[in-house]
Amino acid sequence: MPGVDQPPPGTSPPDGPTDGPTGGPGQGVDLRIEGCTALVHGLGGDEGPGGIGFAEGVDLEVVGGLIARVGPPADRSGAVPGEVVDGRGLLAVPGLVNCHTHAAMVLFRGAAEDVDVHTWFNERIWPMESNLTERDVELGALLACAEMLLGGTTTFADHYFHMDAVARAVEVSGARADLGWAAFSTDGEAGRERGLDFALRRRGGAGGRITTSLAPHAPYTVTEPDLAAFAALAREHELPVHLHAAETAEQTRASVARTGATPMQVLDRAGLLDVPLLVAHGTGIVEPDLPLLARAAERGLVGVASSPRFYLKAAHGTTPVRALRGAGVPVGLATDGAASNGDLDLWASLEVTSLVQKSLGGEGDPTWMTSRQVLHHATTQSAQALHLADAGSARGAVGRLAPGHRADVALVDLSAPHLQPVHDLAATLVHATRPGDVRHVVVDGRVVVRDRRLLTVDVPAVLEELRPRLAALTRRDAGRVQTYQP
Amino acid sequence: MPGVDQPPPGTSPPDGPTDGPTGGPGQGVDLRIEGCTALVHGLGGDEGPGGIGFAEGVDLEVVGGLIARVGPPADRSGAVPGEVVDGRGLLAVPGLVNCHTHAAMVLFRGAAEDVDVHTWFNERIWPMESNLTERDVELGALLACAEMLLGGTTTFADHYFHMDAVARAVEVSGARADLGWAAFSTDGEAGRERGLDFALRRRGGAGGRITTSLAPHAPYTVTEPDLAAFAALAREHELPVHLHAAETAEQTRASVARTGATPMQVLDRAGLLDVPLLVAHGTGIVEPDLPLLARAAERGLVGVASSPRFYLKAAHGTTPVRALRGAGVPVGLATDGAASNGDLDLWASLEVTSLVQKSLGGEGDPTWMTSRQVLHHATTQSAQALHLADAGSARGAVGRLAPGHRADVALVDLSAPHLQPVHDLAATLVHATRPGDVRHVVVDGRVVVRDRRLLTVDVPAVLEELRPRLAALTRRDAGRVQTYQP
Repeated sequence: MPGVDQPPPGTSPPDGPTDGPTGGPGQGVDLRIEGCTALVHGLGGDEGPGGIGFAEGVDLEVVGGLIARVGPPADRSGAVPGEVVDGRGLLAVPGLVNCHTHAAMVLFRGAAEDVDVHTWFNERIWPMESNLTERDVELGALLACAEMLLGGTTTFADHYFHMDAVARAVEVSGARADLGWAAFSTDGEAGRERGLDFALRRRGGAGGRITTSLAPHAPYTVTEPDLAAFAALAREHELPVHLHAAETAEQTRASVARTGATPMQVLDRAGLLDVPLLVAHGTGIVEPDLPLLARAAERGLVGVASSPRFYLKAAHGTTPVRALRGAGVPVGLATDGAASNGDLDLWASLEVTSLVQKSLGGEGDPTWMTSRQVLHHATTQSAQALHLADAGSARGAVGRLAPGHRADVALVDLSAPHLQPVHDLAATLVHATRPGDVRHVVVDGRVVVRDRRLLTVDVPAVLEELRPRLAALTRRDAGRVQTYQP
Repeated sequence: MPGVDQPPPGTSPPDGPTDGPTGGPGQGVDLRIEGCTALVHGLGGDEGPGGIGFAEGVDLEVVGGLIARVGPPADRSGAVPGEVVDGRGLLAVPGLVNCHTHAAMVLFRGAAEDVDVHTWFNERIWPMESNLTERDVELGALLACAEMLLGGTTTFADHYFHMDAVARAVEVSGARADLGWAAFSTDGEAGRERGLDFALRRRGGAGGRITTSLAPHAPYTVTEPDLAAFAALAREHELPVHLHAAETAEQTRASVARTGATPMQVLDRAGLLDVPLLVAHGTGIVEPDLPLLARAAERGLVGVASSPRFYLKAAHGTTPVRALRGAGVPVGLATDGAASNGDLDLWASLEVTSLVQKSLGGEGDPTWMTSRQVLHHATTQSAQALHLADAGSARGAVGRLAPGHRADVALVDLSAPHLQPVHDLAATLVHATRPGDVRHVVVDGRVVVRDRRLLTVDVPAVLEELRPRLAALTRRDAGRVQTYQP
């Protein structure tokens, strides 16, 4: 919808004022962000009825951790809100959603560089991970939460070990996360039970900011019967499943050679396409997989997480986003861990998604994966991929600044020279905005970053405790977690 | 050279203390950066004798705009330096060199999105550029200088119109630049004369921070006889030439069809490979071009500037860096203009160079274009590409923290969560450092950015003057500068 980007200040967002469950404007408001420009959905355009636009001069009102109203300034003379954030000159975007990471792997940032995937797993990461204590994971997760929150990433999906430590970091930092305790078939049934116990115990934790998933590692490390057992547990306990699959074309070829089926076909046979599923990476997804994924997507069951910087670095090609969108599969954006990706900068994932999708595959097509399409991936589709798009469900909804959604907001300061002038807010967000441009961050209605300062984690203390551990963490002579064999 | 990354504090850099022309440490020092870690060359490794490493606990001493000494803290009891910068906890890197840009095109940031190159030129940029006044270019260049300096980019090569305005912006902002006034054959001889007059008049300006080049636009907009005329002027006046060539594979195919020669063969026939030459882009450089370029590179005459983010966005493939390195051609890093690249973030160019070079071409090779190789491109090779690598020449030398080089330094603050912990400083610089991590910037021995604040340009005033011009700038009904026909 051309022309909606920058309506005159004070105009309504397209659907008019949207009042939430609290009734009228201002009543019982816990937090009001005043006078910002807001990224809003429902404007048509590239992504149909979910299309993205920008409403100027709006207030965001939060009640009980939920967005209650997004609209023009209402009567402010009534009840005083609990807290006010001055949003003038700032652009409010839904807190970013990192659809697949291993937060604590910031511990290995820069320690596994310039190698192929076999070396990366077998000679670097899996040996180093065998050194990790639960406290290491907690320190790493705290550092990762700090990095993500400071850059406006409010939700992340984490798949790792020692997950109680990660849950504590989420609790302390004020972030939101979907957590799953990784399991290999070599862990036996104990691995499955540990993951289930964690998922049931921590579900709804941190005041509802923690949701949980079951987390079998991947079809190349978990047997088909074990995958089926996870699917059965997911059905029984109404838990989603989060796993790696078809990470590379090589894995897909190896799977076909070993089992006669692609990784997606293996997941289908194991019943995992009949439960809510998050597939990480999928650069090895091939044509025959699409009908299977399309059927699951039609039932709202499957999403894919794409972290394109890592794929370039590892020479893995990239997730076939265009084909997946054609099949109706939501593709969320991610960073993977910092040991593969360098950092947890989701803004870079937005931009690289645009660049890579325009570029890879034949002669490329610079006209698709527009900035608005990228933003649709970063908001609506990322929430769908994490099964966090249904405001009526117990898991809650994120990814939109709309009533009934959790109040997760990043306020971007557009005043820096590298963002000016602004001809197109969508292009500015995708191609020029950096984590450091995020000025305030709200999660679940609570201000956790104010004026670029994180209010929840004492980063220098974390680093000080970590420093003496670093040499021990990068030792590679104490066994390895697994052996990579695609 | 393994193990040199993080010697114990206080150890010497590999070559021992390196005293400059002033004789002993401390004498007559204008500026001393105390106690930093410094990126230094001469350590072997991936790029041979020019290899990169890091020396801890060193002082950098500046005399008369030149680096005079890089070494362990010397006796500080003598003459008091003019100025002291506390470098403790900071990493000093040579100021970054943006090898090809059009600074003032920040004016069109986000105004030419998601289109192919034909539409980009003919329907967006060349119509909009016909609206530009000299004052617009000055404001745009000031904004661009602000963006670049704040991010640690101290030198840029600019190829544009109204270049006196750009020269003034360089003067005011304190940046360093090599400037060329663009000419098309449609400008006739007057275009060549204007470019020559500018180059002679401004050479050595801004206290020596301005160098100049001749700037024919490209082989597809400048005829072969006119290119030959530029080559003759370059020889006569000892000026380098900076042009676009082989920007895309399509241009190379069109050149062969039209002239029987690739763009590089055309440059060779015109005599441009016999003068100091900077070729922007070169994604259409092909096998038969390599021997020609190798011969020119052997004589120190040719360099290529690569801005890989833009190529991905436009689906142009990328510069064949590996082949060019094989031929001995220096490849410097660049951003192109912000209208194509989104911003002027050279750190992103470092990272994307690594990602794309690992990834593109067949199955890719994740083991090459290591972080140290990228840093070699960003320092030594970028200076070579701009003919700014010879400390004995009138143009001066940048790109290294070494005696006799201009004192252009970016001091990177490594304390942010997204940079910690540090296992490998080279990887941290390439894959995690952002412009906002640059804390202080020195150009020609003068502090221009202190504590992330630019001391030279009043950015809000620039933006205020610019705001009423924006609507007029993006009109597309007043003709166009040229018509794109590869």
